[in-house]
Amino acid sequence: MPLDASARGVYPIAPTPFHPDGRIDFDSIDRLTEFYLGCGATGLTVLGVMGEAPKLDHAEGLAVATRFIRRAGNLPVIVGVSAPGFAAMAGLARAGMEAGAAGVMIAPPNTLRTDDQIATYYRQAAEAIGPDVPFVIQDYPLNFSVVMTPGVIRRIVQENANCVMLKHEDWPGLEKISQLRAFEADGAMRRISILCGNGGLFLDFECERGADGAMTGYAFPDMLMDVVRLAQAGERDRAHDLFDAHLPLLRYEQQPGVGLAIRKYVMARRGLIASDAQRKPAGGMSATARAEVEYLLARLARHDPRAAV
Amino acid sequence: MPLDASARGVYPIAPTPFHPDGRIDFDSIDRLTEFYLGCGATGLTVLGVMGEAPKLDHAEGLAVATRFIRRAGNLPVIVGVSAPGFAAMAGLARAGMEAGAAGVMIAPPNTLRTDDQIATYYRQAAEAIGPDVPFVIQDYPLNFSVVMTPGVIRRIVQENANCVMLKHEDWPGLEKISQLRAFEADGAMRRISILCGNGGLFLDFECERGADGAMTGYAFPDMLMDVVRLAQAGERDRAHDLFDAHLPLLRYEQQPGVGLAIRKYVMARRGLIASDAQRKPAGGMSATARAEVEYLLARLARHDPRAAV
Amino acid sequence: MPLDASARGVYPIAPTPFHPDGRIDFDSIDRLTEFYLGCGATGLTVLGVMGEAPKLDHAEGLAVATRFIRRAGNLPVIVGVSAPGFAAMAGLARAGMEAGAAGVMIAPPNTLRTDDQIATYYRQAAEAIGPDVPFVIQDYPLNFSVVMTPGVIRRIVQENANCVMLKHEDWPGLEKISQLRAFEADGAMRRISILCGNGGLFLDFECERGADGAMTGYAFPDMLMDVVRLAQAGERDRAHDLFDAHLPLLRYEQQPGVGLAIRKYVMARRGLIASDAQRKPAGGMSATARAEVEYLLARLARHDPRAAV
Amino acid sequence: MPLDASARGVYPIAPTPFHPDGRIDFDSIDRLTEFYLGCGATGLTVLGVMGEAPKLDHAEGLAVATRFIRRAGNLPVIVGVSAPGFAAMAGLARAGMEAGAAGVMIAPPNTLRTDDQIATYYRQAAEAIGPDVPFVIQDYPLNFSVVMTPGVIRRIVQENANCVMLKHEDWPGLEKISQLRAFEADGAMRRISILCGNGGLFLDFECERGADGAMTGYAFPDMLMDVVRLAQAGERDRAHDLFDAHLPLLRYEQQPGVGLAIRKYVMARRGLIASDAQRKPAGGMSATARAEVEYLLARLARHDPRAAV
Repeated sequence: MPLDASARGVYPIAPTPFHPDGRIDFDSIDRLTEFYLGCGATGLTVLGVMGEAPKLDHAEGLAVATRFIRRAGNLPVIVGVSAPGFAAMAGLARAGMEAGAAGVMIAPPNTLRTDDQIATYYRQAAEAIGPDVPFVIQDYPLNFSVVMTPGVIRRIVQENANCVMLKHEDWPGLEKISQLRAFEADGAMRRISILCGNGGLFLDFECERGADGAMTGYAFPDMLMDVVRLAQAGERDRAHDLFDAHLPLLRYEQQPGVGLAIRKYVMARRGLIASDAQRKPAGGMSATARAEVEYLLARLARHDPRAAV
Repeated sequence: MPLDASARGVYPIAPTPFHPDGRIDFDSIDRLTEFYLGCGATGLTVLGVMGEAPKLDHAEGLAVATRFIRRAGNLPVIVGVSAPGFAAMAGLARAGMEAGAAGVMIAPPNTLRTDDQIATYYRQAAEAIGPDVPFVIQDYPLNFSVVMTPGVIRRIVQENANCVMLKHEDWPGLEKISQLRAFEADGAMRRISILCGNGGLFLDFECERGADGAMTGYAFPDMLMDVVRLAQAGERDRAHDLFDAHLPLLRYEQQPGVGLAIRKYVMARRGLIASDAQRKPAGGMSATARAEVEYLLARLARHDPRAAV
Repeated sequence: MPLDASARGVYPIAPTPFHPDGRIDFDSIDRLTEFYLGCGATGLTVLGVMGEAPKLDHAEGLAVATRFIRRAGNLPVIVGVSAPGFAAMAGLARAGMEAGAAGVMIAPPNTLRTDDQIATYYRQAAEAIGPDVPFVIQDYPLNFSVVMTPGVIRRIVQENANCVMLKHEDWPGLEKISQLRAFEADGAMRRISILCGNGGLFLDFECERGADGAMTGYAFPDMLMDVVRLAQAGERDRAHDLFDAHLPLLRYEQQPGVGLAIRKYVMARRGLIASDAQRKPAGGMSATARAEVEYLLARLARHDPRAAV
Repeated sequence: MPLDASARGVYPIAPTPFHPDGRIDFDSIDRLTEFYLGCGATGLTVLGVMGEAPKLDHAEGLAVATRFIRRAGNLPVIVGVSAPGFAAMAGLARAGMEAGAAGVMIAPPNTLRTDDQIATYYRQAAEAIGPDVPFVIQDYPLNFSVVMTPGVIRRIVQENANCVMLKHEDWPGLEKISQLRAFEADGAMRRISILCGNGGLFLDFECERGADGAMTGYAFPDMLMDVVRLAQAGERDRAHDLFDAHLPLLRYEQQPGVGLAIRKYVMARRGLIASDAQRKPAGGMSATARAEVEYLLARLARHDPRAAV
């Protein structure tokens, strides 16, 4: 079923599991997908930044996406198709949709500057993948150096009927969510789904501002789902209590560059993937960093017993 | 007394208080300084990014620094002297030292790229301010877009005898602290003081990695002092407990652009400054953001009763 | 007489002459100004990038500007007032206008990204200098990393009545001139003066596209004036012939970083300034580079005997 | 025959010819290659920035490279293999070498900042393509925002035996050539081939500084060959005379973004390719721009009759 603007909940960003020698670990893809299914994920995103997508060649990327899609069954899977050119982007989008993806995610190249350049890029990208492929805007200025105002996002949404979701990871970004929802309330923009990234660092307030949930790679997606559920149920204090218990680790994971190493380490410790191996170039973890994570995990388990590993 | 490499504890980054009409509020400077003195600060930094230094002209900047210095008595005061050219930098450094500053802080211009460019810049800056003026390197890539490896910092330290401190706010930055301390242990670099910025977001672990304390503008510097003290006393769990209680607010404050508005708001709420006014250009706070901060303050007060406002 | 939108011809960007020991060389300011007056310049711009403005402190900058203004007599002088904050900018603008400047030039800080950020910056700057001070937008993406679309320039012009001129140095930029003139022809923007920088590298065609002349620091401004005059008189081939004769040297001068060294060298060779000294940080010229410039000068003199030095 | 450090002359950067509907025009590849063979090119580079490489998917890129390689016969062909990750880079390098390429060219990703990051990137890239594949460093800061000092280039050369050439397009860059040749003369670096890009804008002096020739896409590569030949034969004045005759057009072509449109237009006018079509995103030419190019072509033909089109 194609992705649409009603999407909500938590779409974890899945890492791509590797064997220590660099081969793709397809068994861990299965195990990880089972875990996501079991803990209430409402969708799944593969081949994102955290999925080490640029380190896979075309055939590998497609193989990874396909394995996730097949195992995920009815769970909608979004495939990252960001590429240096539209030919590769369109090729992966087409192949991914044929394999059963629900939609694709497109990040802007880090050379875009002006409002017009950004709007033009998305118009050309939407044309390249075709009008029947639903797509997600990835708005992550810290990583991509592209700054999209609420007005530019509105332009993209209004100019491209197949734009159905914003992966929101601007920083700061709370006012942006409020602004976009205000556009919708005023009838100035049709409704889109907003799922939040940025490691979840502001998820507690993002839900209150009108976000529909999270799309991020935090190693305890099960807890993010609870936060979203509590927030959407109006249980404000309980949502913050749970979020705050995870915040020390979540903040530690959200470090650029080394964040993926930490996440894979925690996921391996939780038994979700067999190895925390990454392909090169990769930021590693020192013994001290590993000890720090273990300390944070031990502290977390005291606050949230379900998080014991 | 001139700043030297033995500096430790907490040097709050002081905001510059303004009246709502944009005039400098010198009475609030006095009140703020009293507060810092009363709560155990070991030093003070003025005219930093958070001090809205670029919005002051030369005479105003000097007047602000002088007022802080006089009121601070024996507390060492570091004056930010970053400027687009060496003439203005040297002028402010000279005037600040004559007014009683303990040292100056220098950020790199955001056009520097290569290791050689960075090292050359600090050599020329050190020459411009003169060999008798102790200086602090401000290493803040997220804000300045200048990336300094540990090796480059070592070059700056070794080439300039008057370099006595690093304001460390790289992100991620824990391994950098360990690396610099390892250089020192190996005899490859003389010892410098390392105080950490970045809003304090990793202060819990930075102290354990060998940092001497904090230099940041979090609105509860009194709590940062306790964290540093507990960490240095080996009370690891208590240090983290206190830190974690503040983390939700601290993280909220650390948002680029709007962070200063939040800090001034909290400081005004605490009665430390009369108004949260900023000069233009300024990021403001929406009513929703103010309500979020109030909510965080209320939650914080439950964990740390001394933080009640 | 204040600068207005009818300005045309050539406004050379004047270097700031220094003695070899770094002191300002006021006698050379006089000699240089005489030269500009004598060769038909229609105006003058001081304290630009090429004027090493950031290397002067406030008092020095004002002294340099004042000296040029006094000597220039009726020639309108534009003073660069770009600064890291509005207090310094407004202070220099006020003092410059009191000293007799015709207007000021404002470059955007290199942190601006979105259309809104750029327009807001100029609105705040215009407010800071005051509505009675005519100003020039400096649009130089290669140096400032700020990309202004024609639409953004139109916004600045329409929102600020005191914006009277564009220093155009986008690259590529020919279509931008055509676009802005088309806005004017359509009644979508009021007329402004457009003078071109970028070392003059496209001046031959810029005049044909509708530019009013040049504002650049090429060491033979006398020849630029002839090119502009010929182009405006419709003597297309002769304009290009003259321009092409200068192009090899002009191109050599337009190298970022070292360009100023080359210009000061040629100006000293022409006897326009006493020394080619720059303040630090400065890009120097190797012996080989000097020999290359001499070779280019010799070749130029064969094509344009008036250029013999 | 694999590329080695003795390469010299002119390696034109070939555009990828397209039909107006976006399909690859293989017949034009043949015609273009015949032209290069006929006019004295000593090699050929395909799938560079100018070859619109990112707009081709993997299979298309390989098909284009293969067609050029086959037609080129004994002429060494360098294949651009820059890619967002090492898997795609290694895949294209392997396939290209199997198809008969002489070597590959690697540009740095625009996120690299420090000396160590750059050196590490090339070490990992060299490892990814394998020690038997000769490679070219592309040093083009204006386009890639990566600044490589001569010292960093020396590190790359010394650390990777398969690094045999520098595509030099730093700006300014003359001193860099001299510095690298001085390293070689001092025995501090083994000899590499240096071919110059940057549209050829400084080719006249680059040859004199020690460059081995040019690797650029100027639409009259035949003239570049003559310039290189004359320079290498010590015919300084004649080399400059010829170069200067082409400089007005060459400068016009070297405009970022629109440069490729201009080159394809001129090549189509010369009959070297059937159409000047580009794939999206593409900078186009206005009617005015086309008229300007025609004017430049007409003027060029008067100076260099062989350039008549």
